[in-house]
Amino acid sequence: MVALGGGHGLYASLSALRRVTGDLTAVVTVADDGGSSGRLRRELGVLPPGDLRMALAALCGDDDWGQTWSRVAQHRFRSKGDLHDHAVGNLLIVALWELLEGTTPDPTVAGLDWVGRLLGAQGRVLPMASVPLDIVAEVQGADPARPEQISHVQGQVACAMTPGKVLSMSLVPPDPPACEEALAAIEEADWVVFGPGSWFTSVLPHLKVPELARALTRTRARRVVALNLAPQPGETDGFSPHTHLEVMQAHAPDLRVDVVLADRGVVDDADALDKAVRSLGGSLVLADIAAADGSPRHDPARLAQAFVQIFRD
Amino acid sequence: MVALGGGHGLYASLSALRRVTGDLTAVVTVADDGGSSGRLRRELGVLPPGDLRMALAALCGDDDWGQTWSRVAQHRFRSKGDLHDHAVGNLLIVALWELLEGTTPDPTVAGLDWVGRLLGAQGRVLPMASVPLDIVAEVQGADPARPEQISHVQGQVACAMTPGKVLSMSLVPPDPPACEEALAAIEEADWVVFGPGSWFTSVLPHLKVPELARALTRTRARRVVALNLAPQPGETDGFSPHTHLEVMQAHAPDLRVDVVLADRGVVDDADALDKAVRSLGGSLVLADIAAADGSPRHDPARLAQAFVQIFRD
Repeated sequence: MVALGGGHGLYASLSALRRVTGDLTAVVTVADDGGSSGRLRRELGVLPPGDLRMALAALCGDDDWGQTWSRVAQHRFRSKGDLHDHAVGNLLIVALWELLEGTTPDPTVAGLDWVGRLLGAQGRVLPMASVPLDIVAEVQGADPARPEQISHVQGQVACAMTPGKVLSMSLVPPDPPACEEALAAIEEADWVVFGPGSWFTSVLPHLKVPELARALTRTRARRVVALNLAPQPGETDGFSPHTHLEVMQAHAPDLRVDVVLADRGVVDDADALDKAVRSLGGSLVLADIAAADGSPRHDPARLAQAFVQIFRD
Repeated sequence: MVALGGGHGLYASLSALRRVTGDLTAVVTVADDGGSSGRLRRELGVLPPGDLRMALAALCGDDDWGQTWSRVAQHRFRSKGDLHDHAVGNLLIVALWELLEGTTPDPTVAGLDWVGRLLGAQGRVLPMASVPLDIVAEVQGADPARPEQISHVQGQVACAMTPGKVLSMSLVPPDPPACEEALAAIEEADWVVFGPGSWFTSVLPHLKVPELARALTRTRARRVVALNLAPQPGETDGFSPHTHLEVMQAHAPDLRVDVVLADRGVVDDADALDKAVRSLGGSLVLADIAAADGSPRHDPARLAQAFVQIFRD
């Protein structure tokens, strides 16, 4: 089973999927340019490690050992100095990459595997590409004074925070090398899960890595799209569930989807959604997967239950 | 068995002692104010972790796991940015201290025990005091223009690099709380080993923590002093082996020593050394403990052999 994504969305899907399968691989975006990850990327010329770290933490062992090292990895320094906001796990991942350089064919994967072992991770975490990426968004009205103008915004932070409407995204470089082990995991998977997550900066990027897009199109695995519970301010402001799917199809016209999973409570226009799902070749599953407190977060147990039902049918 | 010291000297004694005993506790100076440790201390208000990290690395497991995590702990970032020269193990130790604060009676010790477990450390590493310390040296000729003048120099880096002659050292604060577990280890030990190491900044500081000095004087353990192979430029320029012992006695007049271990090749005035050893109440053991390549480093296997002989006699 392969889960694709980044950030908090992938954390949610992994927290659910780890309850359902013993064979889980996360394939994670490496386009972040903000915060601790962005600084590490600029200072040391490495892949931004933050989304990888979060995915590893989502898979950490249940025992005292796994819980403690996961908390260490997620811990951020707070100060008025140089270390402020750096996540310890980011530093650990980067140190392993530097240390393993030249000792093994793929130090990136080997370093992540070492941190996985430290955390007792129940699954594997891989980057979607072997080089750092930048997201470029085509945006309408990035300059609020010219609401009709279409321009390009570069960088994950800039894309996520643009006041304009994001129309599409692409990557720089446009044809990065995919992670070999990620391609192999997708080829061998029975199920591939897209989302939930920031649509343009965490879910769609995988489809713009050409090698990865080909593997995702070709694989015999069945494909599930888990939709978000709410639009994201900035990135997908005003997007209804079916708009998410339409945008996905526009970014990967050849991709067929088997199942689309949405929370029962957030679907306002069921017909439009059903039409978008059918246009991707799939069927719609509605379930109660939101947290009981009404916040726009997935409940890991409910999401897991929905996945079990999908995988069984 | 308890080994006292800091830095490279303690690394050498621990590398030897781990071959000799299965019950080893290091009690480590916490007065560093330079490099990665000094910056962490100033930025986050924590104990300087560097000497503690090095002691843990000296005790790391022999297997792939212990070796790898020890290399990670010792790894330093190299860049033109904020992280330059930070040792990863320092960041890990500090993160655990921050994380464990309020969850356990002694987060300092608990954090070091966690890193010890990560490294598969064959022994325990404790700080000599529970608060960061500063070393103050009484120095003759700190200002080269006034070679006779006696002044005070504060800070480990400044003391280690003064162009003057160090006469004595003291601590700020002068009566810091000792680490309770270190006091207990000294009380229960059969053997306590002082040195080798930077005399004024790594070996003598323990004797200026009043609680620790009392424990070291009272313990029924036998006391061994392992002398350095060469004077240190700046700190102990021109010191012969017996001068080291005289300075030690001046800093802890009540301390009796059972055995003084020196390398056969570095003793120029055997009579003076023998006299200094007897004045401390001990006997002199000469052995070949220097590295075979002629560098002023202890050879771990030879040093271990000398310790075995001492502990047996």
